[in-house]
Amino acid sequence: MRRAIGVEQVEDIALGAAVLGTGGGGDPYIGKLMAIQAIQDHGPVELATVDEMADDDWSVSIAMMGAPTVIVEKVPGGQEAAHAFRAIESFLGRPIKYIYSIEAGGINSTIPITLAAQLRMPLLDLDGMGRAFPEIQMVTHNLHGITATPFTMADEKGNSAVLSTINNRWMETFARSIAVNMGATAYIAAYAASGKEQRVAAVPGTMTLAETIGRTIREARAAHVDVVERICATTRGFVIFQGKIVDVQRRTVAGFARGEAVVEGTGKDLGHKLAVQFQNENLVAARDGELIVTVPDLITIVEEDSGEPITTEALRYGFRVNVLGIPCHPHWRTDAALAVVGPRYFGYEVDYTPVETRMSR
Amino acid sequence: MRRAIGVEQVEDIALGAAVLGTGGGGDPYIGKLMAIQAIQDHGPVELATVDEMADDDWSVSIAMMGAPTVIVEKVPGGQEAAHAFRAIESFLGRPIKYIYSIEAGGINSTIPITLAAQLRMPLLDLDGMGRAFPEIQMVTHNLHGITATPFTMADEKGNSAVLSTINNRWMETFARSIAVNMGATAYIAAYAASGKEQRVAAVPGTMTLAETIGRTIREARAAHVDVVERICATTRGFVIFQGKIVDVQRRTVAGFARGEAVVEGTGKDLGHKLAVQFQNENLVAARDGELIVTVPDLITIVEEDSGEPITTEALRYGFRVNVLGIPCHPHWRTDAALAVVGPRYFGYEVDYTPVETRMSR
Repeated sequence: MRRAIGVEQVEDIALGAAVLGTGGGGDPYIGKLMAIQAIQDHGPVELATVDEMADDDWSVSIAMMGAPTVIVEKVPGGQEAAHAFRAIESFLGRPIKYIYSIEAGGINSTIPITLAAQLRMPLLDLDGMGRAFPEIQMVTHNLHGITATPFTMADEKGNSAVLSTINNRWMETFARSIAVNMGATAYIAAYAASGKEQRVAAVPGTMTLAETIGRTIREARAAHVDVVERICATTRGFVIFQGKIVDVQRRTVAGFARGEAVVEGTGKDLGHKLAVQFQNENLVAARDGELIVTVPDLITIVEEDSGEPITTEALRYGFRVNVLGIPCHPHWRTDAALAVVGPRYFGYEVDYTPVETRMSR
Repeated sequence: MRRAIGVEQVEDIALGAAVLGTGGGGDPYIGKLMAIQAIQDHGPVELATVDEMADDDWSVSIAMMGAPTVIVEKVPGGQEAAHAFRAIESFLGRPIKYIYSIEAGGINSTIPITLAAQLRMPLLDLDGMGRAFPEIQMVTHNLHGITATPFTMADEKGNSAVLSTINNRWMETFARSIAVNMGATAYIAAYAASGKEQRVAAVPGTMTLAETIGRTIREARAAHVDVVERICATTRGFVIFQGKIVDVQRRTVAGFARGEAVVEGTGKDLGHKLAVQFQNENLVAARDGELIVTVPDLITIVEEDSGEPITTEALRYGFRVNVLGIPCHPHWRTDAALAVVGPRYFGYEVDYTPVETRMSR
């Protein structure tokens, strides 16, 4: 089944993807403008479900990698994504029938839409995270043994790379260095997957999920109902803290934006503090020093009234916010998955507890 | 014209290439053992002159890149060079008829011999430096507009990369990062060049030059004549200082071995000091604080009696040495070339003066 992604759908997808971006994934605003321009130039994009793929139909993901703090400052040249796509197609030596988003959180929700419009190719309604994550191997396809190799990269100057590695963690190391050399951001094409593989390995329906979240926010604002409550209902999420941002520390290091935001409680959380630490994406939230939500569950900071998701690079002193905890896709809750994206991988010596378990206590 | 490179020739080439290595280029000992093994397994290698190449015959260079301090500790797996070669051949999409050495100084004199033996392919009697240099773009082919792209890399674990850049200085940046990630050393294949290009761009006869220097040393030792004097006669070089090593500082940083050796004068140089600074290769020699020999001329430290060249990682307190200054190939003495490899590129604010000019004063 296919349906058209036009300008209105892109608006909703970009907004919803900012919620799934959990503070990272890049500011979707510039990505949205690019996708809208591409659709105006080339017509709507067809969004296809995985069901229509034959077992041996092939798809590749297109994305930007690097520090979101830099993505907002370094405007793309326009041909990088196509360059990375042509390189992976040539290296694979087989025709690619579908484009997909490896990360439907943040800017990487709309980067594949832009390329799909430019190349007039269908986009798959799925992704490899169901959210945003900072590293290459943090992809459900990786959990299912799908290799990121061949992995192509392109920059706005005309440089490119094709990387082949023995596992996807090595790919993260190599690609991160090249991305830093390319100016802290790069376009990538990777994780070629067949229809047979996508049916098992992908998070299905994520593009539609992002669109639904975005539309929900838009409609709630128009109807003057509680936007944050509607986001939680749509995502099965929780308001884990409400308050005012009183401190933000942020640095761009080794190709990542790292830092911490501190929220001083108001209302029901008066007298308490919440610290949110991030590496591109929000990783953990600690209430008065105790971790209450961790990766792989989603931690998204939204503006209190409008429900507008705030990326880590946009966090500022004085913002009145709600901090949301949203359950991740079940793919991420196995022991094998938690070894890849759980709190211990990021250096936090705690076991993962699902956010809904903690909130129901 | 072709002639055979057997075990004896490899011994001489490796020894002579250590003189051309100017302290860097990697310890030729391990490279020599590998080449001898390959010749014993597969037979001698045919050394071909550039004259026999048709204009559209293609050649590629094979080398190791990285910090020589690590090369001596990290033994190759054996298939890396072939892996890099197959990758570049596949990416070029044309048959490769010849292998060549991009750097006939140090270990990169024998790495191509090993692969030529394994693949039973002819080796060209030329190189891209006439010595050793630390960076990818410091190649006479670069001066003649030949691109390092496509540039393939392989490590002993099975990882590989194919890099394409807008110029060869960018290639240095990208490849250095990947080499560091690969464990500070990597095998590379690059600078594909046609017969037409090799006739203009290469330093001709460098393999034979290395062999001649090595044979000269061997024969001088056997005849109990002055080895150092014979090296100088063969290379048109000079003994710029004699003395005892009293200090060595060395660190492996960003994929390079950097440091300085200080020689306290004896004999005619009694009461003076010579400081030699290196980045993989010896870059400049300062006598009592004044630079007397600089890149692109060769600075080679040899053991006083045996004439044995000493690589920077083998420098030790107490060695009695002669420091040689050897004129570089004329390719390197144009203004354009000096912008790439002259003292100012390496941060020394002096003009280049040919060593023979200074020594004749």
